[in-house]
Amino acid sequence: MTKLPPIDLRSDTVTRPDKTMRNAMADAEVGDDVLDGDPTMRALEERVAGLLGTAAALWVPTGCMGNAIALMLHLRRGDVFLAAEHAHVLHNELGTAAWLAGGMPRTLPWTDGAGRLSPSDVAEAAAAEGPYYSLRTTLLCLENTHNAAGGVVTPPDEHALLVSAASAGGLRVHLDGARLWHAAIAMEVPPAALTVGVDTVQVCLSKGLGAPVGSVIAGSVEFIAEARRVRKMLGGGVRQGGVLAAAGLVALDRIDQLGKDHANATFLAKGLVELGWEVDLPQTNIVLASVADVRSTLERLASQGVLATPMAGRVRFVTHRDVTRSDLRTVLRRIAR
Amino acid sequence: MTKLPPIDLRSDTVTRPDKTMRNAMADAEVGDDVLDGDPTMRALEERVAGLLGTAAALWVPTGCMGNAIALMLHLRRGDVFLAAEHAHVLHNELGTAAWLAGGMPRTLPWTDGAGRLSPSDVAEAAAAEGPYYSLRTTLLCLENTHNAAGGVVTPPDEHALLVSAASAGGLRVHLDGARLWHAAIAMEVPPAALTVGVDTVQVCLSKGLGAPVGSVIAGSVEFIAEARRVRKMLGGGVRQGGVLAAAGLVALDRIDQLGKDHANATFLAKGLVELGWEVDLPQTNIVLASVADVRSTLERLASQGVLATPMAGRVRFVTHRDVTRSDLRTVLRRIAR
Amino acid sequence: MTKLPPIDLRSDTVTRPDKTMRNAMADAEVGDDVLDGDPTMRALEERVAGLLGTAAALWVPTGCMGNAIALMLHLRRGDVFLAAEHAHVLHNELGTAAWLAGGMPRTLPWTDGAGRLSPSDVAEAAAAEGPYYSLRTTLLCLENTHNAAGGVVTPPDEHALLVSAASAGGLRVHLDGARLWHAAIAMEVPPAALTVGVDTVQVCLSKGLGAPVGSVIAGSVEFIAEARRVRKMLGGGVRQGGVLAAAGLVALDRIDQLGKDHANATFLAKGLVELGWEVDLPQTNIVLASVADVRSTLERLASQGVLATPMAGRVRFVTHRDVTRSDLRTVLRRIAR
Amino acid sequence: MTKLPPIDLRSDTVTRPDKTMRNAMADAEVGDDVLDGDPTMRALEERVAGLLGTAAALWVPTGCMGNAIALMLHLRRGDVFLAAEHAHVLHNELGTAAWLAGGMPRTLPWTDGAGRLSPSDVAEAAAAEGPYYSLRTTLLCLENTHNAAGGVVTPPDEHALLVSAASAGGLRVHLDGARLWHAAIAMEVPPAALTVGVDTVQVCLSKGLGAPVGSVIAGSVEFIAEARRVRKMLGGGVRQGGVLAAAGLVALDRIDQLGKDHANATFLAKGLVELGWEVDLPQTNIVLASVADVRSTLERLASQGVLATPMAGRVRFVTHRDVTRSDLRTVLRRIAR
Ligand SMILES: [Ca+2]
Ligand SMILES: [Ca+2]
Ligand SMILES: [Ca+2]
Ligand SMILES: [Ca+2]
Ligand SMILES: [Ca+2]
Ligand SMILES: [Ca+2]
Repeated sequence: MTKLPPIDLRSDTVTRPDKTMRNAMADAEVGDDVLDGDPTMRALEERVAGLLGTAAALWVPTGCMGNAIALMLHLRRGDVFLAAEHAHVLHNELGTAAWLAGGMPRTLPWTDGAGRLSPSDVAEAAAAEGPYYSLRTTLLCLENTHNAAGGVVTPPDEHALLVSAASAGGLRVHLDGARLWHAAIAMEVPPAALTVGVDTVQVCLSKGLGAPVGSVIAGSVEFIAEARRVRKMLGGGVRQGGVLAAAGLVALDRIDQLGKDHANATFLAKGLVELGWEVDLPQTNIVLASVADVRSTLERLASQGVLATPMAGRVRFVTHRDVTRSDLRTVLRRIAR
Repeated sequence: MTKLPPIDLRSDTVTRPDKTMRNAMADAEVGDDVLDGDPTMRALEERVAGLLGTAAALWVPTGCMGNAIALMLHLRRGDVFLAAEHAHVLHNELGTAAWLAGGMPRTLPWTDGAGRLSPSDVAEAAAAEGPYYSLRTTLLCLENTHNAAGGVVTPPDEHALLVSAASAGGLRVHLDGARLWHAAIAMEVPPAALTVGVDTVQVCLSKGLGAPVGSVIAGSVEFIAEARRVRKMLGGGVRQGGVLAAAGLVALDRIDQLGKDHANATFLAKGLVELGWEVDLPQTNIVLASVADVRSTLERLASQGVLATPMAGRVRFVTHRDVTRSDLRTVLRRIAR
Repeated sequence: MTKLPPIDLRSDTVTRPDKTMRNAMADAEVGDDVLDGDPTMRALEERVAGLLGTAAALWVPTGCMGNAIALMLHLRRGDVFLAAEHAHVLHNELGTAAWLAGGMPRTLPWTDGAGRLSPSDVAEAAAAEGPYYSLRTTLLCLENTHNAAGGVVTPPDEHALLVSAASAGGLRVHLDGARLWHAAIAMEVPPAALTVGVDTVQVCLSKGLGAPVGSVIAGSVEFIAEARRVRKMLGGGVRQGGVLAAAGLVALDRIDQLGKDHANATFLAKGLVELGWEVDLPQTNIVLASVADVRSTLERLASQGVLATPMAGRVRFVTHRDVTRSDLRTVLRRIAR
Repeated sequence: MTKLPPIDLRSDTVTRPDKTMRNAMADAEVGDDVLDGDPTMRALEERVAGLLGTAAALWVPTGCMGNAIALMLHLRRGDVFLAAEHAHVLHNELGTAAWLAGGMPRTLPWTDGAGRLSPSDVAEAAAAEGPYYSLRTTLLCLENTHNAAGGVVTPPDEHALLVSAASAGGLRVHLDGARLWHAAIAMEVPPAALTVGVDTVQVCLSKGLGAPVGSVIAGSVEFIAEARRVRKMLGGGVRQGGVLAAAGLVALDRIDQLGKDHANATFLAKGLVELGWEVDLPQTNIVLASVADVRSTLERLASQGVLATPMAGRVRFVTHRDVTRSDLRTVLRRIAR
């Protein structure tokens, strides 16, 4: 029997540009985005700023660079930033928050449930004020949806309480919205409802939305002006980026399609539960399973033609536009065998 | 009635050099320690290396610089270091572990009691190994005594288990031994019994031992050669440092006297308990009291002529060679009023 | 009279992908290049490694990131790197060599002509060895062609003498080959003849070769493995980068066409000389003109429909595949008016 | 014949504290300078601020740390600072200006004579202003006296022209005044006449003035408040520093005695000239000799009992309070042999 190709649930980053997106890239109007600006880049950035309710926005090659730029501009030596346990900026960005942005992290527990911070924890951390030789807490990093907690959403009211706790304590707020689109769809609110009060936000185009490359950071006009300079420093100032921005514009047309991925994740989770797995029902497109041994489970899954990844001590399956309901049935069948 | 001078229990850093120490400073043989070495510096460094059982040692102006140099040499971008909750390197050194040494911290809980790490937590953290785009855990930072846990000691057997868990996992070990002398005296072991297996260690001369200025880092000959260069970079390469080293040599004569401070701390703790305070019995010279409101308690104490500091959400009293048993009786009387 | 569109000689970065290149992008096979590698990326990297005669290569979004990664891996705190006066890494990369890679630059004069270093200067700088508290010279950065010197080439024999002077002095060598292709074509040697003995090299695809986005760094297998990690740190680890690599592959088919740009540059230079300008005859595609006032000259040119940039105190014109001989005739006519 | 002890002209840093200074150290009133300030430190800092005409001042362990703190506060990523060829911050501080303060240096030539900058060079460098992706020149570093140029002084009028050129160009000014006292004495002006218009200045106590350890940075109240925090970060926040400040206060009593060192330097230089050496007449206490081979000359001198150092390609002799006129006669006799 021939080996069937594996079904890839490692991440929604594996999504590939489809024909429509590739055609848009091939037809993109371009310019030198370092020198005078690329018109398609500009269109993308304006559209994202509109979606997020910010004054301005800037394309960046990756979400990692987006978060790094924001933190570099928010933090200085001697500052502390707050982030939830297992936050992406803490565990998945190679320490840039520390060595590049210069921040000492303070991890906040999931007091209000998986991936959810408590406003009073934020307020307490913000209140800590000491003499000149003390660290200063200056920034709150939010993450919506929270990846390592299984794609859980922070609803607008909870978000508002966290932001107001931060603001009252004199903190700025950065939102890692790599999957903000998913949160918006899951809660049936516009993305801008989830950025209220934040200083900066980062959103990804290359995950569930299917673009090959690219993220966007958004904030005030002043922030974006500085961010453009820092982007150049880090080596993210590309030239005819319009070919990528064109894909991003198509990606943004597809936000509404994320609901299908969420339904698929729920379908997968229920199927796994029926197979005896310990799985929480997902709110978006990430399914986390608690298993006895993560490494051996991942190896067994791979041998069965199902690709997943480790995440915060569990097994993570991510649904996305390149896996269908039928693929997931196959996944469950393969696992059941 | 005239206001009596406050009794200063904020820290053992407030200790002042006495007549003997000042005479030693005045008589110190000195040289240019950047150019060819200062003979008194050399004597101090050799003596500390001997006490700690390391091949070499280097004077530094402060414990903060000592820890920073060690971490700068152990860590590189993309590394994670492990440290206990409330470790001094995390909360009291202005973030140098992050922005200067480049490490992303991972905080380990006090699984085995206040200030005490679990070897299995270390082993688990060390085991975490991912693909090339993952952070790499490379260093364990220990702290003995653990300041924010109330000066608790890690005994040699526990220390050995932590170090072997780290080594088995491929981690290096740095020991922040700002008050290692206290741990040694409290457990009646030589200091070298508490450095077994570590790569580097930092000890302070200006705390309980009473020197005005100075700490020492110790480790291999190769480490100290690199550390000397990094010390110069950070601006810690002083010239005729023998005047300070002479004070350090006198300080080292006084390690045995720390037992008196420990007894005084126990006396103070018991007295506070009798007054209804919630206090754990100290193992060394730090007494932590849990109070309803730290700030207002500290203010009240100050108004009563008793100086203390906040520490990890509690009130910290530190006994040292410049406060006597009689002073502590006065402290208890003032508080009782 | 309607205003004619300006002819853009500011940089060869303004080149736009043509139909062939766009079709290749639209048809590119892609994968997740962070997770398991994108096949088109792999093909591009292997082809560049072959052209440059190195063991391995890695795509990066920009030449700035490529140079930054190389310098980050070559340099550590306390190191000095050597670079020619007006080198791109000194003047055009926002200081990353200093603040990110940690190097203190030492500028070498153009002893052997514009943009050309003297092997004996390299040898002398490499020889400087001091005590432990001295800076250590550890790296030579070459740039071929040298941008700010007017695209001058370093021929293979001269290159070999520089590299051997560096090696003899214990220095590593990084070659900023943003326009290495131009040097190879100008001298009618294979690109690999210009990388002999270097440790690392960076080449651009988005300049004369016409790709929209992308550069490549090349070196040993070990270097590239580390570079891949650092690329992820800096936010250059893109996902379905094959769409860009496909453009890069087409770009590499066009190296031979650079000769046309060189001939055009010579045509432009001669034309300017005839108009009374002070211009050196170019070796490649960059024409530098000495003028009384750079700023006002650039403004006048712009008003005449000719775009150029300031470069090291002169006016720079760059020829590229998107300007034709006929365009240059127009340029000369407009200037002559 | 017994070997005579060498006469040490390597640096004025080798000066040792004398009896008076040691007594002052032994008698110094001290406090915890991190917590509430050490009274002798305060006295020293106020006296230096007064001498330099600044609003505030701060003791630091070394001149290297003083310069580093100032540059860390003046510079940010993407900035350029201007410094004279062979400036101490460029060549003798292990690159902290680059990797720690984040500045890319631009070296200015000695247009107006050895160690002397031209105001028009400063103005031109300050004027360079480019688009957002350009480096920004933001700081001028002066050095008075200029060490590597042979202790040459910048007189008040020249200083004023340099500072005004910088200010007009929007630059801040930091003055490395490690030997500012010597400049003041040489020109018979108060030190404050040499700090006019600068933002920050660093002066050393441990060189010609004879203190064992310590420098001072001075500037505005706001700068010093920030500097105190950065000093703690770098590990320069010592506790009972009064013992060192006391030495510093004695050192300041001796500024007028530097004239003797200057006369001695002139005596030495003239003697060397008579012996056929190529030496410029010194303005202060540094004598530079041009020799065929620096290394072998230094070795020969050492074998003759005369210690000197290499400096910017020449041999440097420094006179100081621990060498007498008679010692210098011995030096000349030994060399003449
Ligand atoms: Ca994708
Ligand atoms: Ca606050
Ligand atoms: Ca003390
Ligand atoms: Ca291009
Ligand atoms: Ca001295
Ligand atoms: Ca300016």
